[in-house]
Amino acid sequence: MISKNCIKHINSLELKKFRTISGTFIAQGRKVVNELLRSRLKIKTVYALKSWIEKNSENFQNVEIQEVSPEEIKKLSDMQTPPEVLAEVFMKEVQEFELNAQKLYLCLDSVRDPGNFGTILRIANWFGINDIIASEDCVDLYNSKVIQAAMGSAFRINVFYTDLTQTLSKAAKEGIPVYGTFLDGKNIYQEKLSSNGIIVLGNEGHGILPETEKLITKRLFIPSGADKENAPESLNVSSAASVVCSEFFRRKF
Amino acid sequence: MISKNCIKHINSLELKKFRTISGTFIAQGRKVVNELLRSRLKIKTVYALKSWIEKNSENFQNVEIQEVSPEEIKKLSDMQTPPEVLAEVFMKEVQEFELNAQKLYLCLDSVRDPGNFGTILRIANWFGINDIIASEDCVDLYNSKVIQAAMGSAFRINVFYTDLTQTLSKAAKEGIPVYGTFLDGKNIYQEKLSSNGIIVLGNEGHGILPETEKLITKRLFIPSGADKENAPESLNVSSAASVVCSEFFRRKF
Repeated sequence: MISKNCIKHINSLELKKFRTISGTFIAQGRKVVNELLRSRLKIKTVYALKSWIEKNSENFQNVEIQEVSPEEIKKLSDMQTPPEVLAEVFMKEVQEFELNAQKLYLCLDSVRDPGNFGTILRIANWFGINDIIASEDCVDLYNSKVIQAAMGSAFRINVFYTDLTQTLSKAAKEGIPVYGTFLDGKNIYQEKLSSNGIIVLGNEGHGILPETEKLITKRLFIPSGADKENAPESLNVSSAASVVCSEFFRRKF
Repeated sequence: MISKNCIKHINSLELKKFRTISGTFIAQGRKVVNELLRSRLKIKTVYALKSWIEKNSENFQNVEIQEVSPEEIKKLSDMQTPPEVLAEVFMKEVQEFELNAQKLYLCLDSVRDPGNFGTILRIANWFGINDIIASEDCVDLYNSKVIQAAMGSAFRINVFYTDLTQTLSKAAKEGIPVYGTFLDGKNIYQEKLSSNGIIVLGNEGHGILPETEKLITKRLFIPSGADKENAPESLNVSSAASVVCSEFFRRKF
């Protein structure tokens, strides 16, 4: 039996405000909770069904595991299909951001949808990009839907929330290339792409915002193969992220 | 004022069974409804807020438009944030599938998540792939979340639900290349890719199913740039679709 206060506390972590106060967040589902084992994150408490505990508890030594009923986990979780396991986890320590001219960064300008944000973290992680710069109005890394969509990648890569204008101006001053995709950019398949720099991806509805656009030094374009009358207006931001990260990575072969 | 029966009818279209009976489906939101104008689909009825009607009704001539209140559209829609407009639309006529050896197809093996399915339609459409082969256990094209995620691409490209084993066996017999991505495949960036053939993408949790895998003639692999200990297990199926479609398309330049 878990207390009403416990349910209230876990539910409160759906909001960033309460996550900031407690310094913890929620990771849900077998796969995501298992990924915690591979990470350096510290688990506060695991709430799980008996069936999960029987199979997994030996992997989670030195962690407080609380058995809950299917009805209880339903109350703890915000998922449509309740998970068998849910963990309250301590957030990573926030590192100070320091721009490294040798690194390749992904930079998210006002990406609001948690599914997109999480999927982009997974894509970046796959292609070996370990550092994400996010504008301050992006969705929070510890939003439970971000954690869900990132499938463990949120635990493995660094996300730095910064003032984009400041960060990108600094990059420009240091001669670090800043890439972005636009309808009038150069064909990404044919352009020279550097192994360092910053790749900016824009907001779901509005693309890269005007004040950010001014700081882009390399305008790229993902060509479309559709006839004009049959073409979609754009690619979803996470689909564009796949194409762009894949193209940068491909140049290594 | 709309009737209770009308609300009941529209809500029933959330289920495939009732869509099949009525031959109609639901398209929601300003962008998706506007995309209907570019398509050859026939709209049965548009339900919209006054504000939408004032701005858009002249584009929707010869269409029955019914004004509804914010409360009413909330009852009609299954979206978390209710849209300003929602349309009941007649489905496309089902064309018989005929394998064309010259064409490039995307083939979805048991893709169940409507968000993924819709996003993949949008990606295919962007890269000029107009025909999708889907296994019979894929999510339904007219599922409202598929329509939502496809952002109009569901109206523009052809989706054929077929028995994959039969279709892919036929392809193999005719010497049509059948591609799939696997962990032990050949580096997609370095392989020769044909301008025709079938590209198979697998289920969210299980990848390409064993009976389908037997019929793949060209095994590909999307390399990862992450260190082994830091790498995600896989890419999401729609992220993989982006990379693969982009790679096939790139060979045209």
